[in-house]
Amino acid sequence: MAAVKACSVLITGANRGLGLEMVKQLSEVNCPKRQIFACCRDPDGPKSEKLRELAEKHPSIITIVCLDVADPCSIKESAKKVSSLLGKNGLNLLVNNAGVLAHGTLQSTTDQEMRDAFNTNLMGPFTVTKEFLPYLRTAAKASDTSGMSCDKAAVINISSQGGSMSTMPALYLQFPLFPYCVSKAGLNMLTLLAAQELKADEILCMALHPGWVKTDMGGENAPLTPRDSVAGLLHVVSKLTEKEHGGFMDHTGKTMPW
Amino acid sequence: MAAVKACSVLITGANRGLGLEMVKQLSEVNCPKRQIFACCRDPDGPKSEKLRELAEKHPSIITIVCLDVADPCSIKESAKKVSSLLGKNGLNLLVNNAGVLAHGTLQSTTDQEMRDAFNTNLMGPFTVTKEFLPYLRTAAKASDTSGMSCDKAAVINISSQGGSMSTMPALYLQFPLFPYCVSKAGLNMLTLLAAQELKADEILCMALHPGWVKTDMGGENAPLTPRDSVAGLLHVVSKLTEKEHGGFMDHTGKTMPW
Ligand SMILES: NC(=O)c1ccc[n+]([C@@H]2O[C@H](COP(=O)([O-])OP(=O)(O)OC[C@H]3O[C@@H](n4cnc5c(N)ncnc54)[C@H](OP(=O)(O)O)[C@@H]3O)[C@@H](O)[C@H]2O)c1
Ligand SMILES: NC(=O)c1ccc[n+]([C@@H]2O[C@H](COP(=O)([O-])OP(=O)(O)OC[C@H]3O[C@@H](n4cnc5c(N)ncnc54)[C@H](OP(=O)(O)O)[C@@H]3O)[C@@H](O)[C@H]2O)c1
Repeated sequence: MAAVKACSVLITGANRGLGLEMVKQLSEVNCPKRQIFACCRDPDGPKSEKLRELAEKHPSIITIVCLDVADPCSIKESAKKVSSLLGKNGLNLLVNNAGVLAHGTLQSTTDQEMRDAFNTNLMGPFTVTKEFLPYLRTAAKASDTSGMSCDKAAVINISSQGGSMSTMPALYLQFPLFPYCVSKAGLNMLTLLAAQELKADEILCMALHPGWVKTDMGGENAPLTPRDSVAGLLHVVSKLTEKEHGGFMDHTGKTMPW
Repeated sequence: MAAVKACSVLITGANRGLGLEMVKQLSEVNCPKRQIFACCRDPDGPKSEKLRELAEKHPSIITIVCLDVADPCSIKESAKKVSSLLGKNGLNLLVNNAGVLAHGTLQSTTDQEMRDAFNTNLMGPFTVTKEFLPYLRTAAKASDTSGMSCDKAAVINISSQGGSMSTMPALYLQFPLFPYCVSKAGLNMLTLLAAQELKADEILCMALHPGWVKTDMGGENAPLTPRDSVAGLLHVVSKLTEKEHGGFMDHTGKTMPW
């Protein structure tokens, strides 16, 4: 199984669900000099207990960073902290994973529910990417390989089939997730445009769908375990090159329609 | 040339550009009992002078309504006013036309610019559609024809190629409209999901791209006049049926890729 060899990795929403599992699997791979910035909005709170335990097991690898993706000040603070810990080789891999599910239809969704989904699922990745871009650029420049890869410099946005214009509408009456789908469609466009913009810097950008996964968000009926979803995602991530740049794939490496 | 026969039509952003031209062309067609609610955010201001002149020419057809699509209170107020003027046959056609262009790249766009584009281009159509839905539903019920049409009950969202995931990325470095494209992609998803949700009510939903048009937004270099763009749009609108429901087309009737 291919492994992600990126030295420095930052993951948002890393205290539970897919984010926590990603930190776990990345810290178990033998990769010298690995630094994982496991970000969460309440590092000392009860919802971050498992992440704290994991960080205690791998103190030289995992650094817990306070980061609320819906709060621009918190993002700025986190970038200050991370940059002080990053070496001169910059940040190789940014995973915009934090997200909120929002149920409802056009008719039942309130203004506030739209704004919450927008703030976390779209403005979060927007602001986090902008703030960490200098360090991704440093990593791309510091690399002595040509082309693109997640080991060199990359932004991975954890999107969702919910953002797919081609396939979501057929599922909508069964899964009425109006604000979630609208925000993830925006995130997909963000990924596409970021890919155009960051091509010259050789920073790879992708949107990935993790499948339907048994997490707090995915619920009990989901067919996939976080372990299998994340193993799939990391395998896909390890293989990405400039050929896939600007694309949308699921955890098995299948291309998703926009 | 086919003509839109909808009795009651509401258009947002009707004081200039494509909205104003739409009011003009719709008021010139001979259609008995036509009621046009021409909405704008500053009915008495200098930017609404042309609309006021047009309304004076067609006082029995055009009613100017104060509506700021970025302000939920204003939307509520406008719905009160319109409902008091609508007959028992409800509202046939809602055109979400008001929009703002926003230039910038991922890197240059500020939080506030993202929020402004989101508020007008996405939350506007969201809230306006929700608020006027009861009157669209009344129109659908009052109709004695089966199937869907814009003469019966419809929501037309004026979207943009800027929201097309398939075609916008290739244009992006030449036209860096980051916040605009992200908001219009969200609007396209909104249209798709609304189409699913409102199918049972026989309310037609479509996203239309007007082409690149010489308005304040489109600028001098645009190849199309507002007159030709709107003539095309209204021709397309007049022909829409349940077959096109939930689709995305340009002013010539060509299907646009999502
Ligand atoms: N599970 C699925 O089936 C599925 C399917 C498709 C896509 N996805 C996507 O996968 C990603 C992870 O989902 P999941 O299943 O792991 O969800 P989850 O179990 O609900 O976990 C969500 C994570 O995001 C964090 N988060 C939410 N708002 C945040 C904020 N403002 N700032 C920082 N962190 C925040 C949560 O932190 P707190 O503990 O502080 O709330 C938590 O760590 C999401 O982007 C989701 O949309 C999931
Ligand atoms: N022109 C093009 O080439 C082109 C191409 C693709 C799509 N479109 C779309 O077509 C639609 C109309 O564009 P246009 O070319 O006619 O643009 P425009 O000439 O700039 O006119 C925009 C209209 O929207 C109104 N508006 C903006 N914000 C509003 C708000 N918060 N509340 C109410 N009204 C508001 C403006 O009113 P004020 O006078 O008060 O500002 C004006 O009436 C837009 O949705 C645009 O995205 C245009």
